[in-house]
Amino acid sequence: MLSSTARTRLGRSKERGSTDRNDLYEMLDAGLICHLGVVADGYPMVVPTGYGRIGDTLYLHGSTGARSLRAAAGGEVCVTVTHLDGIVLARSVFHHSVNYRSAIVYGRARLVTDEEERMAALRALTEQLAPGQWDYARPPDRKELAATAVLALPLDEASVKIRRGAPSDEDADYALPMWAGVLPLVTAWGEPLPDPALADGIGIPVHISDRK
Amino acid sequence: MLSSTARTRLGRSKERGSTDRNDLYEMLDAGLICHLGVVADGYPMVVPTGYGRIGDTLYLHGSTGARSLRAAAGGEVCVTVTHLDGIVLARSVFHHSVNYRSAIVYGRARLVTDEEERMAALRALTEQLAPGQWDYARPPDRKELAATAVLALPLDEASVKIRRGAPSDEDADYALPMWAGVLPLVTAWGEPLPDPALADGIGIPVHISDRK
Repeated sequence: MLSSTARTRLGRSKERGSTDRNDLYEMLDAGLICHLGVVADGYPMVVPTGYGRIGDTLYLHGSTGARSLRAAAGGEVCVTVTHLDGIVLARSVFHHSVNYRSAIVYGRARLVTDEEERMAALRALTEQLAPGQWDYARPPDRKELAATAVLALPLDEASVKIRRGAPSDEDADYALPMWAGVLPLVTAWGEPLPDPALADGIGIPVHISDRK
Repeated sequence: MLSSTARTRLGRSKERGSTDRNDLYEMLDAGLICHLGVVADGYPMVVPTGYGRIGDTLYLHGSTGARSLRAAAGGEVCVTVTHLDGIVLARSVFHHSVNYRSAIVYGRARLVTDEEERMAALRALTEQLAPGQWDYARPPDRKELAATAVLALPLDEASVKIRRGAPSDEDADYALPMWAGVLPLVTAWGEPLPDPALADGIGIPVHISDRK
């Protein structure tokens, strides 16, 4: 159950909200990147970045030198994950919309210093983007770890919104001789492209070729 | 040409930056939604929302009651549009990455009050999401217009980043017997789904059925 706060309470379209914590997990687990919002030097800044989840903690990472990460460490952040599922074509311009699933998480990001937690977080981040790769690829060495900052954000304050299905038009507009419906947006994996520098005879592993 | 400021100067991965204004237009024009960042009650807030572009102005809109819109009107915002093109599978965990195109626009959002500019902005917003629909669907009436806030953001301060192509591994890692390459992410339109309430005999217009 997601509790309601001043930041997560939905002002409008309340029917689109969900307070089911499983919906939050599902939306986060199905995503590839998030948009991280911070206040840097007094200004809002939104950057796309990877993430991973372990239980009720969301992990972010980045170069220790990145401005967004420096602003996020120990500060208030907002992490948004959005899945766009289709364009809702209504009979009126006003009721045009999109079908989507989104999760917005608010909170204070903690810089992770414990080495064991850092490694678990990096594994979750890698597996979110590329399942199977943590055990397949070369693990990070000491120098690479030193260049990487890891942040933890508790999933304590979050809102989930979902819009599905047909347009919702004004009663009078249903009589208009106009097509209405949904144009779905479909995302799929393409054919894997081998690195031109790949040595001969190295086959593609199934966790990449069979990715769903 | 995009000029460099403290906010748009790239600290890292400078080779991924572009200062070509046409790249900015291309990335914005190819998008469907943006992530709008504001500072609301002192906290960062990131919401997915539609947008449109006319020349060097980006337009946003929303309910006059929306908390994000109220925080954006007259205030500093950051608008980010991200296209995720693929997962970059490197030989080391550290060099895993994504191929992407992103535009980040910073600036102060102006509440648009001129009725002619508001209508032009709403047309641009509608056409961005659903080309052809502005002239096809019922235009907004007085009540709907009164419920809609329109914001304008100048494209004065923006950064563009692009990552394309194969992984970039450490020299020593190319000898590892490991597959590396790119798993492309492909987005396409699905089959249009008619509104179950659609009256008989209304065909789908070509601007929807043939959308590229």
